[in-house]
Amino acid sequence: MGIQFEIIARDGGSAARAGLLQTAHGAVETPAFMPVGTAASVKGMGQGQLEEMGAQIILANTYHVYLRPGHEIVRELGGLHGFMAWPGAILTDSGGFQVMSLKELSRVTEDGVWFRSHLDGSSHYLSPERAVEIQLALGADILMTLDDCVEYPASEESLRRAVKLTSCWAHRSKQFFQERLGDSPHSSLFGIIQGGTDRGLRRESAEEIMEAGFDGYALGGLSVGEPKALSYDTAESTLALLPTGCPRYLMGVGTPEDLAEGVARGADLFDCVMPTRNARNACVFTSEGRLVIKNARYARDAGPLDPACRCAVCRRYSRAYIRHLFVAREMLAAMLATYHNLWFYLDTMREIRQAIVSGKFQDWLARMRARGPRIEIGWREERLKGRSPSRDVCYRDFGRNL
Amino acid sequence: MGIQFEIIARDGGSAARAGLLQTAHGAVETPAFMPVGTAASVKGMGQGQLEEMGAQIILANTYHVYLRPGHEIVRELGGLHGFMAWPGAILTDSGGFQVMSLKELSRVTEDGVWFRSHLDGSSHYLSPERAVEIQLALGADILMTLDDCVEYPASEESLRRAVKLTSCWAHRSKQFFQERLGDSPHSSLFGIIQGGTDRGLRRESAEEIMEAGFDGYALGGLSVGEPKALSYDTAESTLALLPTGCPRYLMGVGTPEDLAEGVARGADLFDCVMPTRNARNACVFTSEGRLVIKNARYARDAGPLDPACRCAVCRRYSRAYIRHLFVAREMLAAMLATYHNLWFYLDTMREIRQAIVSGKFQDWLARMRARGPRIEIGWREERLKGRSPSRDVCYRDFGRNL
Repeated sequence: MGIQFEIIARDGGSAARAGLLQTAHGAVETPAFMPVGTAASVKGMGQGQLEEMGAQIILANTYHVYLRPGHEIVRELGGLHGFMAWPGAILTDSGGFQVMSLKELSRVTEDGVWFRSHLDGSSHYLSPERAVEIQLALGADILMTLDDCVEYPASEESLRRAVKLTSCWAHRSKQFFQERLGDSPHSSLFGIIQGGTDRGLRRESAEEIMEAGFDGYALGGLSVGEPKALSYDTAESTLALLPTGCPRYLMGVGTPEDLAEGVARGADLFDCVMPTRNARNACVFTSEGRLVIKNARYARDAGPLDPACRCAVCRRYSRAYIRHLFVAREMLAAMLATYHNLWFYLDTMREIRQAIVSGKFQDWLARMRARGPRIEIGWREERLKGRSPSRDVCYRDFGRNL
Repeated sequence: MGIQFEIIARDGGSAARAGLLQTAHGAVETPAFMPVGTAASVKGMGQGQLEEMGAQIILANTYHVYLRPGHEIVRELGGLHGFMAWPGAILTDSGGFQVMSLKELSRVTEDGVWFRSHLDGSSHYLSPERAVEIQLALGADILMTLDDCVEYPASEESLRRAVKLTSCWAHRSKQFFQERLGDSPHSSLFGIIQGGTDRGLRRESAEEIMEAGFDGYALGGLSVGEPKALSYDTAESTLALLPTGCPRYLMGVGTPEDLAEGVARGADLFDCVMPTRNARNACVFTSEGRLVIKNARYARDAGPLDPACRCAVCRRYSRAYIRHLFVAREMLAAMLATYHNLWFYLDTMREIRQAIVSGKFQDWLARMRARGPRIEIGWREERLKGRSPSRDVCYRDFGRNL
């Protein structure tokens, strides 16, 4: 087995747990957030900076790396770890979500998916076996099975078809992975549960995926446009069905509040492009709310992005300077905002873990909920004036990265 | 006096010298290269990284910072040092070169320059006094006088007019600076010598500028398109006229080889956008020559950018990875190439200084010259095939930054 998962502490009032996920590339303290390195790079970050901020595991997108530079080149250069010069753990998605997002560029068959590259229109084929093969070439610590991910809303029929296909592909993935396991004894394979927001279908999917048996289980097909309450309910009821001894991964989620709610429902791993993509759009997460740092109100603000933050950016730079960098379209703008946002996410997870370990997670959660959703600072006032200055900037990024 | 300049060692066979320039923001070991932070940011670099690579002084462009965010905001936030959170020395140019480059957007009068912002077309006026005032607001350690910079080739008449105007403005700048000196006892003012490649005019300009008397002297109007030999000759004859006890600044120069030739002719300070701008265009300086890292030949190259380099990028990342980042248009591409190129420039200057101090500069120079111009690796072969794959990328960036 590639990974070992140990639960260190459990919260008394919820399904939250603190764990330790041992991989061939170091330990991952869970709950953990995985910065997204779409094309083998977390946009705007050097690997040294990711280490510095305490990232223990990152995610790379199989679809993107497969197309460019190609998994064979990456294999030659020592897998993603060698290629990227990243010593920590790596999880690769299966490419399924990206292929599904291409829609008119892809065609799903019983056997696999035909798709055209968004880069050059070239034709490619991804089967469950091929997805595992590519991810093994990439040398990931955690591989994901190819799944059929459906958008919200979806007809029951298409949800049911996706669940069936995902189950079938999960069994094929598992079998292929086991045949190849000798080659990559350090890798683990996670199964993905689909079923949209249909509780019955989720149960069906969970049972079929668990039947195949995996090192960990992921909830796919959430954060695809469904109402938040429904998303939380689905996560809660589905996570409750999964073996407690395995790591559970809530894919593509979400805001810092979503992460905390996911933890409360028993999830251990998260990924989302929100901290990195929002950073590039000048939207910064802080303990006081999100702020759109490009806003003119920060032009003379000598304070840090977040007065409560101890990250290298907040210890050095002012809001006024970072605002200037965004206005002047300097690369450093995105670099600093990305660093801070990732730190904020990672630090939130460290805080949550510490709260669970010390038996204070219920207090932490109550405080967070009492504070209410942290929308942008000043957003309420702007709305009172009939304006919605930056909502689209901050809210358009729900869901996973294509 | 704001700065103190001390000569530590002289080369026996040339005008080269190693010095120590003391500023209110630390010592600068000369000869020194100043990374260019056009809009109060060295593109793609954090200030911590500049410290890490040993930069002791950086340059900021008055024109750009004046237009955005505005010098009053910068003054409020503690000058450029406070605004950028940069603890080292800062030299600001006068804005003259940028204004002259705008051509159809500017109009030069006896009194000063009217120009339109390249950002929004708004009208602005820059006089010698105003240029000093703005630079004092920016809190620079070294200020430059407003000069009239002419392109190459230029008529004798326009060169002569530029020399006269530059001298007149230098006197006005000096007088204004002295009146204000009480406010900024830590600042120093450098005069700029013009005259194109006309030896007589250069002498005339040098004499008039020295008559006004400055803390240091700069050669402007070079690296503006003139042949390299003519540029070297002009620098040599003009630098020989300047007081040996003052720092001498060769503006806008150049390639690493140009820097060494400038040092041999007695220059102490240099700035150029070449290392940073070329980096963003995938052109990397190495001890073996320049390489265009986007080239397909590096797709599987597991070696560092420069096997002889000890920078953080070369110690961690491969050519193959950096090439991938450029092809995938990842921000990290420019970040890593910029870091390496700046390190290469700074390290070349450290090497030169060490050679001067230990009496080996003539050997160093002879080795460098024997090696010949370091064009791109593989460039010769490509040219034999009748192609010129990347000449424009690597060579289009002579001269100073607009």
